[in-house]
Amino acid sequence: MAKIKVAFQGERGAFSEVASKKFIGKNAMPVACSSFASLFDMVEKGKTKYGVIPIENSLIGSIHKNYDLLLERNLKVIGETYLRINHCLIAAKKVPVSKIQRVFSHPAALDQCRDFFDAHPTVAPISYYDTAGAVKMLSESGLYNAGAIASPYAAEIYKMHIIRKSIEDEKSNFTRFLLLAKKEVVVKGKTKTSIVFSMKNEPGVLYKALSVFALRDIDLSKIESRPLRKKAWEYHFYVDIEGSVKEERVKKALDHLGEITHFIKILGSYKMSSEKV
Amino acid sequence: MAKIKVAFQGERGAFSEVASKKFIGKNAMPVACSSFASLFDMVEKGKTKYGVIPIENSLIGSIHKNYDLLLERNLKVIGETYLRINHCLIAAKKVPVSKIQRVFSHPAALDQCRDFFDAHPTVAPISYYDTAGAVKMLSESGLYNAGAIASPYAAEIYKMHIIRKSIEDEKSNFTRFLLLAKKEVVVKGKTKTSIVFSMKNEPGVLYKALSVFALRDIDLSKIESRPLRKKAWEYHFYVDIEGSVKEERVKKALDHLGEITHFIKILGSYKMSSEKV
Repeated sequence: MAKIKVAFQGERGAFSEVASKKFIGKNAMPVACSSFASLFDMVEKGKTKYGVIPIENSLIGSIHKNYDLLLERNLKVIGETYLRINHCLIAAKKVPVSKIQRVFSHPAALDQCRDFFDAHPTVAPISYYDTAGAVKMLSESGLYNAGAIASPYAAEIYKMHIIRKSIEDEKSNFTRFLLLAKKEVVVKGKTKTSIVFSMKNEPGVLYKALSVFALRDIDLSKIESRPLRKKAWEYHFYVDIEGSVKEERVKKALDHLGEITHFIKILGSYKMSSEKV
Repeated sequence: MAKIKVAFQGERGAFSEVASKKFIGKNAMPVACSSFASLFDMVEKGKTKYGVIPIENSLIGSIHKNYDLLLERNLKVIGETYLRINHCLIAAKKVPVSKIQRVFSHPAALDQCRDFFDAHPTVAPISYYDTAGAVKMLSESGLYNAGAIASPYAAEIYKMHIIRKSIEDEKSNFTRFLLLAKKEVVVKGKTKTSIVFSMKNEPGVLYKALSVFALRDIDLSKIESRPLRKKAWEYHFYVDIEGSVKEERVKKALDHLGEITHFIKILGSYKMSSEKV
């Protein structure tokens, strides 16, 4: 079977790579990108068929850079999935935790494992640019008294050892990922649509905007605001609604929204994930 | 006149220190804190009378850590002000830009001066933990071929030279700061109230929540959502509304909001800033 190229941000073994395989299956050929902007470039230029981005984490909140890129660029959202974030302590050799003096990882991952560091005060958390990148660095450097916090998949990729499993403080730690492509796809079954819009700065205007969905019993699963860079204290609102742009009631709602907004962009209609998280 | 202690986060010369002086006047005695959490501690323990925090920047968006702390801790918001963010290139000596090889600053400040770095490709941007801290480091190290990006006030504090003024890409770059204290204050004139609430995850529930304000013509100037750490994909909503909790229509609106929410917390009623930004 031909391999299908999927761009993701980070080093091999990143949670985004795990999400790529979940979206595409075993034919996925993950292509590592150094930044989210270069990931969008890869898909726009057709160097990879798909791109996978994290959009929101249940503990940390939204990944704003990706909301900004969805607005600025012209890729379509064609899928969503959820991944349970399971942080492991990884090292080059099977050593007890007491032998480990420093642990490298992305600041967000270190922050999600505060209880581990409180319980092991002699272990110093050290910020690194990437979770899987920290495992890669350890595998290359041969440091034996240091560890990294990353996915179990990163340990597998770099042939390293898992010293402790699930060291995250909150087990209810999920990240929602989006699948991106140049063109929209035909969707069947339960569908979600992501849109972004901006409005005049007038009293009650957000209430009016949400009324176009509420009046038609269209459920809204997420709302996020981001500043308009050119106009201080005005915002873009990102909303996820149930239904597809092909449905009559969604079409009517978006028509109605058009009457009261400056700007609307449809980011995509895609199959709603059925996972209970 | 007795000095009034005000806690701020960062090194002396930070924009937050400038905001402290704007709130309190020349009797302000700014007290530097290493983190926002330690700033909240200082005010809660009565070590300083006030605290000043940045809450939102017109380009970057909300400072989520501070929204989380306002929820977790018990300080009252008693004032707001806006500051124009004016980034200067600062160095130990009056040298031409061509002599400067590296420029240190907080990543957010470096990101707001991309045009400057594009125009000067031989100057390398280097991430540092703080804008004013970078100026302090240069003043102590005596590095002559390096610069820092920070406020003009940081140059004054550390007796350094401003090489270039206003090197930020967007002149419309403002930060909104909040003044915090242990107890609420009596407010006269045009007032704003900040609240946070969470709701059941039911269709149309945000629309219903906003209706309590819209039905009473109470304007909403800001809405921000943050995840509930204990319940994946449920949110706290932070809103700023016009009016004071002492006003009858605001009281009624909050009563009404209580019927449809799990949880409400009033962060404070305070004088609305009259500045046009």
